[in-house]
Amino acid sequence: MAEKEVQAGITVKKDADFSEWYTQIVQKCELADLRYNIKGFVCYLPWAVRSIKKMYSKYEKALEKTGHEPLIMPSLIPESNFKLEASHVKGFAPEVFWVTEAGNGVKFEERLALRPTSETALYKMYSLWVQSYKDLPFKRYQSCQVWRYEGKMTRPFFRGREFHWIEAHDVFSTEEDAKAQVKEDMRITYDMLEGEFAIPIIFFQRPEWDKFAGAIHTYAADALMKSGKVIQLPSTHLLGQNFSKPFGVKFKDKDGEDKYGYITCYGPAISRIYGAMIAILGDDKGLILPFDLAPVQIVVMPIIFEKSKNEVMNKCEKIKELLEQKYDTKIDARDDVSAGFKFNEWEMKGVPIRIEVGPKDIEKKQVMIFRRDLGKKIAVLEKDIEKTIDNIAEEFTENLKKEQLGRFNDLIVDAKTKKDVEKAIASQKIARCPFCSIDMDGEKCASMVEKEIQAFVRGIKADGNEKPRNNDKCVICGGKAKEIVYIAKSY
Amino acid sequence: MAEKEVQAGITVKKDADFSEWYTQIVQKCELADLRYNIKGFVCYLPWAVRSIKKMYSKYEKALEKTGHEPLIMPSLIPESNFKLEASHVKGFAPEVFWVTEAGNGVKFEERLALRPTSETALYKMYSLWVQSYKDLPFKRYQSCQVWRYEGKMTRPFFRGREFHWIEAHDVFSTEEDAKAQVKEDMRITYDMLEGEFAIPIIFFQRPEWDKFAGAIHTYAADALMKSGKVIQLPSTHLLGQNFSKPFGVKFKDKDGEDKYGYITCYGPAISRIYGAMIAILGDDKGLILPFDLAPVQIVVMPIIFEKSKNEVMNKCEKIKELLEQKYDTKIDARDDVSAGFKFNEWEMKGVPIRIEVGPKDIEKKQVMIFRRDLGKKIAVLEKDIEKTIDNIAEEFTENLKKEQLGRFNDLIVDAKTKKDVEKAIASQKIARCPFCSIDMDGEKCASMVEKEIQAFVRGIKADGNEKPRNNDKCVICGGKAKEIVYIAKSY
Repeated sequence: MAEKEVQAGITVKKDADFSEWYTQIVQKCELADLRYNIKGFVCYLPWAVRSIKKMYSKYEKALEKTGHEPLIMPSLIPESNFKLEASHVKGFAPEVFWVTEAGNGVKFEERLALRPTSETALYKMYSLWVQSYKDLPFKRYQSCQVWRYEGKMTRPFFRGREFHWIEAHDVFSTEEDAKAQVKEDMRITYDMLEGEFAIPIIFFQRPEWDKFAGAIHTYAADALMKSGKVIQLPSTHLLGQNFSKPFGVKFKDKDGEDKYGYITCYGPAISRIYGAMIAILGDDKGLILPFDLAPVQIVVMPIIFEKSKNEVMNKCEKIKELLEQKYDTKIDARDDVSAGFKFNEWEMKGVPIRIEVGPKDIEKKQVMIFRRDLGKKIAVLEKDIEKTIDNIAEEFTENLKKEQLGRFNDLIVDAKTKKDVEKAIASQKIARCPFCSIDMDGEKCASMVEKEIQAFVRGIKADGNEKPRNNDKCVICGGKAKEIVYIAKSY
Repeated sequence: MAEKEVQAGITVKKDADFSEWYTQIVQKCELADLRYNIKGFVCYLPWAVRSIKKMYSKYEKALEKTGHEPLIMPSLIPESNFKLEASHVKGFAPEVFWVTEAGNGVKFEERLALRPTSETALYKMYSLWVQSYKDLPFKRYQSCQVWRYEGKMTRPFFRGREFHWIEAHDVFSTEEDAKAQVKEDMRITYDMLEGEFAIPIIFFQRPEWDKFAGAIHTYAADALMKSGKVIQLPSTHLLGQNFSKPFGVKFKDKDGEDKYGYITCYGPAISRIYGAMIAILGDDKGLILPFDLAPVQIVVMPIIFEKSKNEVMNKCEKIKELLEQKYDTKIDARDDVSAGFKFNEWEMKGVPIRIEVGPKDIEKKQVMIFRRDLGKKIAVLEKDIEKTIDNIAEEFTENLKKEQLGRFNDLIVDAKTKKDVEKAIASQKIARCPFCSIDMDGEKCASMVEKEIQAFVRGIKADGNEKPRNNDKCVICGGKAKEIVYIAKSY
């Protein structure tokens, strides 16, 4: 990164041109490099990877706490596995990368899929691992990458041909247990996305025509971006016995009978969540990151004059020693760039706290503490540094979350007519409106929405609490509305 | 896992039939499942994955402490990248899996390699990322899997067609700096493998004919298995300018001149190290694991009689609460299997500490503490539990390490003649002997060793301290010995 570019910082307002803003964020904060020479594949750079690793760690802990154990599966899947569930293969076939040969001229008899998702690798093994009701519930997850030959335009972190996710696949003895798992998956999603990553979401039950290939029901979280488009974040799927039958995932029940298991699968795409997070939280100055996820949480900045250099550096070292036990702390002692340059750079990179130490501060036995979320600087007595930092650490992410949740509520607009929907979409909002049906008989109206408003029916709220009133009419066909749906543009 | 199988435990002595012993360990401790339906690909199961994750975490910390930053690279490499360095492509071509098509009938113009190692993906990007002497040293690592279409027989964890490793790739402005990095890599290897995983190793400089494809020098750690075969564990390679020239990894030096960087790469294969670790540390009863790496570190075992059941369970819960702050602690309260069954199962699975609590112990205000490494049980007063466990936690791995290092030294035998070498190999040891040369002029003698003794010249000790005496003759050709080499059977 040439210094001039950093100094210039982000040169476009997020509100004015979100797409260019995101491109600059990715490039200038050194998050990803798009110059890798395969289309749709990018390199993730250290500043992003360090946050992504922290996100993985939080998510894995949450899954383990709810009884999931980790697996590592092969990333190749034989085509014959892949073909066992008909609607699954139909849904994924256009997106599969195939390995067909190896070494010096060995052609495989059967093609091997680079996993686009692992149902068809796992459930063949689950048929061996699950034998008795005593083995249930059977809950496993793996952290891995998947490959999808996407037709849509790619965008770093949001959408690419290789992305990094967690997939959890659980087997239960009853449909009720499986449904309870879907609810637990949604709760984990709220805990992580809203609680830890400060990303406001709504969970939708997707319409029949927009389900995961092979699912009975799909529940997916949508977040709304500054561009007015929603992005699908984690989804959880009730697969029922759709896969357990073709793959033979059976168990001997207490009554001695062989029964098919009920399966759920849950897929938080960590790299995509990272993309949504930086897009939603960032501002005109650059990245804003939840406190726990920042690669550097505190940067200590000596304000250096020749005469007091040693004294200032010693003080900075002492502060670093004090804080690095608990926090990722760094001293920026570069002397070939100005203090202003350094301030801008760390603000752009989203470091939550900056501590400035100059000769005058030392005289006053104080330091200056700058918070990236509030954009404010305060003087803090030396003896109060640790306490102050602990307080900021505790409230920083909570603060971001409050701000985002507040903003999100204003973005949902009730619509009674097609015109209302068009108006809401044009003003980059989400329309909530009566709609005929989310079963297949509603698909025709949904494709009208797609064609005429360039927006999508995202489904009904997953908590099932919103019902149309008796006289509500579908905003498209004018027929009786069976549902209240949400319509939005989407990535 | 059927209970009868566990109850039977490991049914073969490690000394008597190492290969069958390892097979049983992998199956009965539920570490991997070999029934996945692609040859050479296996599923890693939770008990192994939980240790492997802990190993990754330790290794990544060690690399970050020495200035390496994490990357995530695409796992596909265009064939044109792959062909840029001639000896590299020659060495790896027989092992590459190729992606040739995607979706419904899209054939790629250029084949895409599933990375067998990432030099040719990374260095193309390094030519963009490294521009100035100020960017150096440039140190990056990624944790990922690699795929190799191996001809040799596969064995879970040791050798497979997909394995999990870390690769670190560093660029320096001088050859001296690069050489110093190779030394640092070796030090990290000793810290991790001997210090943390209790695996004794020797670092060898590999002979010219056994180098990494494209390297100037290869330094590799060998561990000796109970079978009398050595296994190659991490290796570090001095690539010099061999890759920086074809890939254009250049920097503008202080003097204003464009110069090619000096590159090193280092590849600890975590899944393979895990295999070596369980193979080396285990005993006739099953797994023995370093304390920090055990998925469960302490199992609390209530000895249940109907009358005292509640009291005993309460005590167990209290002990768990006390210890789970610091240690992975689990209560085994199953009542459908006997206490003896449970003891055997957890010993087989390598849980370092078992705490037994029965009604008599409660009367005496004590518990029984069993250590897996010593196979001994002691009575400990309730008030001393925490202190006792802390002490065991601290010395457990140290203990394993001492035992293994002692054993290892006895396994190296000095040989003066070919007969001596044959004798050492036949008694499952490593022969140390004078040898003509590890440059290409020694290859003929090395292939004699391979053909006639079914063993391999592993190289010279990497510390460079062992030199032949003036009159020493090569054990094969009788010519002047320029080196002291080590000869062993190998995996």
